[in-house]
Amino acid sequence: NVNKAMNGAGNLMDFLDEPFPDVGTYEDFHTIDWLREKSRDTDHVKIRNKPTCYHSKESIWELIKSLLDAWSGWVVMLLIGLLSGTLAGVIDLAVDWMTDLKEGVCLSAFWYSHEQCCWTSNETTFDDRDKCPQWQKWAELMTGHAEGAGAYVLNYFLYILWALLFSFLAVSLVRVFAPYACGSGIPEIKTILSGFIIRGYLGKWTLLIKTVTLVLAVSSGLSLGKEGPLVHVACCCGNLFCSLFSKYSKNEGKRREVLSAAAAAGVSVAFGAPIGGVLFSLEEVSYYFPLKTLWRSFFAALVAAFTLRSINPFGNSRLVLFYVEYHTPWYMAELVPFILLGVFGGLWGTLFIRANIAWCRRRKTTQLGKYPVLEVIAITGITAVLAYPNPYTRRSTSELISELFNDCGALESSQLCDYINNPNMSRPVDDIPDRPAGPGVYNALWQLALALVFKIVITIFTFGMKIPSGLFIPSMAVGAIAGRIVGIAVEQMAYHHHDWIIFKNWCRPGADCVTPGLYAMVGAAAGVTRMTVSLVVIMFELTGGLEYIVPLMAAAVTSKWVADAFGKEGIYESHIQLNGYPYLDVRDEFTHRTLATDVMRPRRNDPPLAVLTQDTTTVEDVETLIKDTDYNGFPVVVSRESERLIGFVQRRDLTLAISKMKQDGVVSSSVVYFTEDAPQLPASNPQPLKLRRILNLSPFTVTDHTPMETVVDIFRKLGLRQCLVTRSGRLLGIITKKDVLRHMAQMMNQDPESIMFN
Amino acid sequence: NVNKAMNGAGNLMDFLDEPFPDVGTYEDFHTIDWLREKSRDTDHVKIRNKPTCYHSKESIWELIKSLLDAWSGWVVMLLIGLLSGTLAGVIDLAVDWMTDLKEGVCLSAFWYSHEQCCWTSNETTFDDRDKCPQWQKWAELMTGHAEGAGAYVLNYFLYILWALLFSFLAVSLVRVFAPYACGSGIPEIKTILSGFIIRGYLGKWTLLIKTVTLVLAVSSGLSLGKEGPLVHVACCCGNLFCSLFSKYSKNEGKRREVLSAAAAAGVSVAFGAPIGGVLFSLEEVSYYFPLKTLWRSFFAALVAAFTLRSINPFGNSRLVLFYVEYHTPWYMAELVPFILLGVFGGLWGTLFIRANIAWCRRRKTTQLGKYPVLEVIAITGITAVLAYPNPYTRRSTSELISELFNDCGALESSQLCDYINNPNMSRPVDDIPDRPAGPGVYNALWQLALALVFKIVITIFTFGMKIPSGLFIPSMAVGAIAGRIVGIAVEQMAYHHHDWIIFKNWCRPGADCVTPGLYAMVGAAAGVTRMTVSLVVIMFELTGGLEYIVPLMAAAVTSKWVADAFGKEGIYESHIQLNGYPYLDVRDEFTHRTLATDVMRPRRNDPPLAVLTQDTTTVEDVETLIKDTDYNGFPVVVSRESERLIGFVQRRDLTLAISKMKQDGVVSSSVVYFTEDAPQLPASNPQPLKLRRILNLSPFTVTDHTPMETVVDIFRKLGLRQCLVTRSGRLLGIITKKDVLRHMAQMMNQDPESIMFN
Repeated sequence: NVNKAMNGAGNLMDFLDEPFPDVGTYEDFHTIDWLREKSRDTDHVKIRNKPTCYHSKESIWELIKSLLDAWSGWVVMLLIGLLSGTLAGVIDLAVDWMTDLKEGVCLSAFWYSHEQCCWTSNETTFDDRDKCPQWQKWAELMTGHAEGAGAYVLNYFLYILWALLFSFLAVSLVRVFAPYACGSGIPEIKTILSGFIIRGYLGKWTLLIKTVTLVLAVSSGLSLGKEGPLVHVACCCGNLFCSLFSKYSKNEGKRREVLSAAAAAGVSVAFGAPIGGVLFSLEEVSYYFPLKTLWRSFFAALVAAFTLRSINPFGNSRLVLFYVEYHTPWYMAELVPFILLGVFGGLWGTLFIRANIAWCRRRKTTQLGKYPVLEVIAITGITAVLAYPNPYTRRSTSELISELFNDCGALESSQLCDYINNPNMSRPVDDIPDRPAGPGVYNALWQLALALVFKIVITIFTFGMKIPSGLFIPSMAVGAIAGRIVGIAVEQMAYHHHDWIIFKNWCRPGADCVTPGLYAMVGAAAGVTRMTVSLVVIMFELTGGLEYIVPLMAAAVTSKWVADAFGKEGIYESHIQLNGYPYLDVRDEFTHRTLATDVMRPRRNDPPLAVLTQDTTTVEDVETLIKDTDYNGFPVVVSRESERLIGFVQRRDLTLAISKMKQDGVVSSSVVYFTEDAPQLPASNPQPLKLRRILNLSPFTVTDHTPMETVVDIFRKLGLRQCLVTRSGRLLGIITKKDVLRHMAQMMNQDPESIMFN
Repeated sequence: NVNKAMNGAGNLMDFLDEPFPDVGTYEDFHTIDWLREKSRDTDHVKIRNKPTCYHSKESIWELIKSLLDAWSGWVVMLLIGLLSGTLAGVIDLAVDWMTDLKEGVCLSAFWYSHEQCCWTSNETTFDDRDKCPQWQKWAELMTGHAEGAGAYVLNYFLYILWALLFSFLAVSLVRVFAPYACGSGIPEIKTILSGFIIRGYLGKWTLLIKTVTLVLAVSSGLSLGKEGPLVHVACCCGNLFCSLFSKYSKNEGKRREVLSAAAAAGVSVAFGAPIGGVLFSLEEVSYYFPLKTLWRSFFAALVAAFTLRSINPFGNSRLVLFYVEYHTPWYMAELVPFILLGVFGGLWGTLFIRANIAWCRRRKTTQLGKYPVLEVIAITGITAVLAYPNPYTRRSTSELISELFNDCGALESSQLCDYINNPNMSRPVDDIPDRPAGPGVYNALWQLALALVFKIVITIFTFGMKIPSGLFIPSMAVGAIAGRIVGIAVEQMAYHHHDWIIFKNWCRPGADCVTPGLYAMVGAAAGVTRMTVSLVVIMFELTGGLEYIVPLMAAAVTSKWVADAFGKEGIYESHIQLNGYPYLDVRDEFTHRTLATDVMRPRRNDPPLAVLTQDTTTVEDVETLIKDTDYNGFPVVVSRESERLIGFVQRRDLTLAISKMKQDGVVSSSVVYFTEDAPQLPASNPQPLKLRRILNLSPFTVTDHTPMETVVDIFRKLGLRQCLVTRSGRLLGIITKKDVLRHMAQMMNQDPESIMFN
């Protein structure tokens, strides 16, 4: 048996000393073959390990090299963590500064943000932390008047001007230098991770431009977040470091494992939630996620989070984006409003996805798509004009969410905490009982309601423009606003109607029973992205306690169920479909009862399948076939009569081999041999072309009776590019990944009845 | 195309109205075919959905039924969560009571544990919480003397007696009623989840007996934990509730999805860590873990955790097993001892696995295995005799871990916290500076060192006996003891040598810089089970803060690397191998360059493959074939000459079909037809037997040139039972899961050199 194994190995070795450069790589916008990539990785390991058998001196060196090679995965993770953590820190600092620049400037040091400016000032008292003489609004600086209608108008005008400038810069940079830097990037990364090739999507230029334009886009005040693009940035880092190690740069499968981990690092720095990041990568982005990748992702996410913490952009040595601490537990009866928030989240998610996709389709198909710069400018203008008058939309979205999440302590100066204090309460304590709302709260409620409508509408138009734009933050903001409104309503109801049966059991007068901030958090968890588990874990990492996991989970699951009832596709899948990427979703269950024979090509009236024979085809025939068809590869059969399959050859490899060998005396009338040994021909005959080396001797086959469900499963799990269909050993046809996708789309769109009885 | 689809569906429908009962089920100790289970699930969906097309009244009812069916998954999860949470609570309460029963009894109510007894007592002061008149040790109760040598000896004797009684009861119950209830159950559950059938392993008797004997085994003071067996108990619950829904009870694939979620619920209640539970199921136990299962596992784990919390067995309304709160951060320099703890964990893990496997093998192969009851009695006796004199081994292991994890507050009365207080320090505060260790601490150090050696040795002999026994807790205890010892050493070094260069930068005099409890926790994370990510997440859920994730991760990853350097297999995999279960590990990378042809049967000198022909075999031939061979199934070919494969038929289905049809006039000389239409035969000929309905028309095939690496990958990912090998359309042989496993074991045990050059 070992001898036989040896023979097998020997045979395989022949195919390995690649005779033609570039054989086995892929073209742009093509799908990779996971199985082939996997066995190429093994070859790499083998080739590396082989020399250890010969010399003992070399063997030590080889041992060290192989150790380095074994550790290269962890090294790449370390580098990804460090770089993406650093970039996230820099982006946070820059966004902070530029967002404040729209309103004013720090006189003591112009590179300080509002908060930093007033922190370094000595004259700040605790009561008005955000007022200090060093920080001047533009109107005050230019005219000397801080108050009054004139100053307001001037500030308003400059706010809009800065916003337009930022967004113009962002869209221009994207247009000129890196068109791939737009959007959130997650749909494309999902597609890439599933095995598609988009050259340059994760390149150095994209990394640079996306980082810069992300800062500009977020600072311009548009309704978008930095979280999705940070995943893209982290994946670009991952791709960058892959190129340092041939193990990763030369193997598309291994590269994708690194990218999965990089996505985890991206989310980890976006929210300061390493575990949530890993789960996000697992749940939302990744396609092939072996256990090894789980451990590495975790490592990368941790390194990234701690790099970010050392940079400390939020100035509070907290890792997390929104740090919250609540003082009261939740009660079973509160599950009703929590679930209602989930229903709201599901409904608005569905509405958002439909409206956004409709708008993006319109952009794609009409004149609108031709003026991306104008579109961005227009939307920025509208956003700025409408956002400035409302204090809840004027500030950055993450600040807004942070304020909405906050529990009203005694020292809170926010309008949302303007409750009427009981004069008997002597000193401020943490555990303040429920109080009646003051005028500030009612005022805030109105402004929040307006902000809610505004955010919902403007986000639909913003997501999908030609600038980096994430969806997490706007989606969380909408949920948080709705949640806070509901929370205040429940709180006031409970305060004024202690005796109602629904409150009597758990809310005594004078107790602190309702926390509106918690409602905001629950609302935020019921977002549009439908990443149920990971979003809950992220929220759990933000609050740092298991206490609130049930409300969060209830809302998230309700939202998912409601949204699923209206359509299975999430926003990323919808955008993947809109762009027509060949993405085979792991989650779509294919339950139609069709067979491989219904999907394979050639169809009944098509010309027969383009095949090569193992020893009767000439170079000319092959060239004609290549010219006349655009298939990615051709099955090789014993003869046209027997139709017995012996292998599959890639179009690209065939072209390369012929053009290479033509220099070596092969002519058009040469016969192409795919057999093990070419026959000895008379010298007068043209030199034969032996191509067994580029022939894939283990093409994947299914029988024509295989249910399509099984075929879909095989394509998904093994990451196939194509699959040959046979019946009783005869080659009948071929099914490619695109055929599978087309068939699935066709089946999904038809009524079950029409399929079964038409 | 739709028409063709219709035809296909029609064809398939014929096979569905199963003519023979039990066709398509599996026998005990056989492997399931995941692909077949999956498509059977689709059939279930289809059959359910079909009638909606006919009548509108029925259709509403059908709609409700299909909704119920769609929700059944969540209902099962809810039930699993409720039952496993309840069982865990009951087990906790019972263990508490019976562990204390070994030492004494509560006079006011004998069913109170020591802690409950003194809590309900009014005479307890804060200072000696565990001394109250109601609680009496046995000696005091029987002789009236609480102190003195006589009382000590009597208590010692009764402690041993109770321990022997409990363990005798446990092992007898297991022996008589449910032999499957022994061990941790995790190796078997891993095997079952990978697609193996062990009837009764998750049955009702096992559930009942395992729950009862688990309480007895833990209470007997043996060095074992309840965490592993709780996973088994939860899986039994899962199996129990599966039988309520035909969707799960009839489909082995779907059933395994439920079991994966149940495992998560088990860990969730074992530690009070729902997220850690889900990750444990994903990382350690599960084989096929689709996203849907992730969401459901999370739900089940949450429900279970909250059920346990409502039962509140620890009496502190905390969810977690060990709740800890530390007051000081960790410093970069401390990473050195943390990593050393990881190295220790890796080394002791390796030692443990090797020694334990060697002992278990000896038990299996020698006379020892014939006296399981005696073995348990002996080990319990030795444990009790050695454990009683040392206060750290006398108490239950989880109490020990809890104390080791604890930070020494000012009110702590433990011997471990016997530091010499600075007389200038007026009132107890949380943030106590480092102090010199008192005599109690030095005393505790000695006892801990003895406990460490004792635990290491006794656990090796305990794990694998015929009683329920988990490994988490003993493994954590060993790590925690080592960690605490190192922690105290570092603390005292830092106190006495503030000026050393290694301490100077971060540990000023009078500061609280070293937390020995944290070292204990880090040591515990570097355990033997090698579940890196999930154990860290569990620890993270216990402490509830990201603060300590880096030390935990550093230790866990170091431990894993060290252990991996000595051997890839964890304790569960080793036990799977020891028991010879057909488990195809997802983590083993198969990188040998053998081909399918080297592994397939028949081998070179074997008799030819046993095949059936599609239209020339008689019933007698088939019966002879079934009698002469013990294969699980037979390939069907067009004819023996052409060897073109048309399908595969299961032995079991064939037997059932023949015995059924013999009653209907089929005789031994009848010809078996696997073709679509049997020819019209003259009436004189015996009635033909048409068996196309039981023929699998889409058997899985690979070519003989397929690298074994790819074959292994296909077996793993698609969960195949067998795979046929062809060359140019001719059937050459067959590869079963057992062939693959045998080949892998063969390759692993050989030197790479010997494979390549022999």
